[in-house]
Amino acid sequence: MTTDEIYAQIQQKKSFLCIGLDVDLHKIPSFLLEKEDPIFAFNKAIIDTTHHLCVAYKPNTAFYEAYGIKGWQSLKKTIDYINENYSDILTIADAKRGDIGNTSSLYAKVFFEDLAFDSVTVSPYMGKDSVEPFLAFENKHTILLALTSNQGAFDLQTKIIGEQELYKEVLQVSKTWKNSENLMYVVGATKAEYLAQIRQIIPNSFLLVPGVGAQGGKLQNVCAYGMNKQVGLLINSSRGIIYASQSEDFAEAAAKKALQLQKEMATILMQKQ
Amino acid sequence: MTTDEIYAQIQQKKSFLCIGLDVDLHKIPSFLLEKEDPIFAFNKAIIDTTHHLCVAYKPNTAFYEAYGIKGWQSLKKTIDYINENYSDILTIADAKRGDIGNTSSLYAKVFFEDLAFDSVTVSPYMGKDSVEPFLAFENKHTILLALTSNQGAFDLQTKIIGEQELYKEVLQVSKTWKNSENLMYVVGATKAEYLAQIRQIIPNSFLLVPGVGAQGGKLQNVCAYGMNKQVGLLINSSRGIIYASQSEDFAEAAAKKALQLQKEMATILMQKQ
Repeated sequence: MTTDEIYAQIQQKKSFLCIGLDVDLHKIPSFLLEKEDPIFAFNKAIIDTTHHLCVAYKPNTAFYEAYGIKGWQSLKKTIDYINENYSDILTIADAKRGDIGNTSSLYAKVFFEDLAFDSVTVSPYMGKDSVEPFLAFENKHTILLALTSNQGAFDLQTKIIGEQELYKEVLQVSKTWKNSENLMYVVGATKAEYLAQIRQIIPNSFLLVPGVGAQGGKLQNVCAYGMNKQVGLLINSSRGIIYASQSEDFAEAAAKKALQLQKEMATILMQKQ
Repeated sequence: MTTDEIYAQIQQKKSFLCIGLDVDLHKIPSFLLEKEDPIFAFNKAIIDTTHHLCVAYKPNTAFYEAYGIKGWQSLKKTIDYINENYSDILTIADAKRGDIGNTSSLYAKVFFEDLAFDSVTVSPYMGKDSVEPFLAFENKHTILLALTSNQGAFDLQTKIIGEQELYKEVLQVSKTWKNSENLMYVVGATKAEYLAQIRQIIPNSFLLVPGVGAQGGKLQNVCAYGMNKQVGLLINSSRGIIYASQSEDFAEAAAKKALQLQKEMATILMQKQ
């Protein structure tokens, strides 16, 4: 999937919402636990009611690994279901991987080929040769952690390295890597005020923005500072949408929450024109 | 497993060797491909011939994820086999995970409880609240990436942050985290000359040292600069040992390579006394 295709989808749906499919069996409606694959049943229902309101789905792999082999099966079924039925939607493996070159190549193959995700999140700590194996895949996107939404981001990411903060150094150095046009970046919504400076370094890249909702980030602030010509934002909400209800109506309740965000986004997009 | 138990094992075996179980079906003897679980068959044979020569086994999870659900089954069988038959040996999940708090908790549960590893490698980029969920597990070890063995380490890790290199900042700040006594650190053998300064910051911690052998690091140099009272080093070799032969004798050939390293280590330990 190209960024032009993502932008076309944003215009068509008037949405730049990404829904985080972070499925926890303790939080889903209990009647689903009787199904053969409760995780997939939950995801399928959520996807069927929300696909017209969002442009991306982002399962965090930890939630699937937590259920071992069954979890991996549910993840594969979920991605296959999206690719077969809603192939215009961007899929993001929130895996935060990264290793020495030959090992990163393996991870890239797992997420881009075997599981057939469109994109994967990657940690920058090990540098160029740990990220370039992901970048080598055409029309796939490598979403590099830059400034994350959690409090621990202030431990290292905002420390001054040379003349600028570490996260800016990450942005800057990553632009020199081979196939860097395949990069997107994670920037937490809880740190919206940083976005103006981030846009000076990477004006054209898409940003994956977690932290709206449960973590306290504000959509209006993120858009004010972070939007570019192609919108350039994928705003993620997970818990705020998928756990809107624990009853039979959970999928419709999730769609309602997604619709609220989509409407806010449509207004922002209209004001921008 | 406590660090005292690791040290006792080092003294008994006169070895501080860690064997990396990075299994690639293209590199293992072809006759194993006929087995029901070639990866486990390979690992079991290697483990049976080398367990008296090493103190740790380190599967890199990428190599198992690369084979999907079957790969996870092989990983689980491998760890169960080690835990059941050679329970004194430290097991390391080389997974390089790390995420926001509630997600890191899931990863910690997967590796420490479900898969029953003794330790897991973790990336420091997201800071304190991404690592502390791992540290909360008693008698389990969280092995933080500090200075990695690859060339990309020079992109960020050795850049000056405040008054010192980023990797030293990682060492220093991690000492302030809750249950930091459960930390070990990854320091690449290819950067042995850095070890003297690293030891000034973390004199007592164990270091996991990849990069001896295939990546070019020298054992003697690592020990000269990095050894402490409890030895404090786990020297990893993967490809150099496990792919010593592609014939029927592969496990014996691996044991020979491991024996060479163990003998070198025994000599170093004797000289140290």
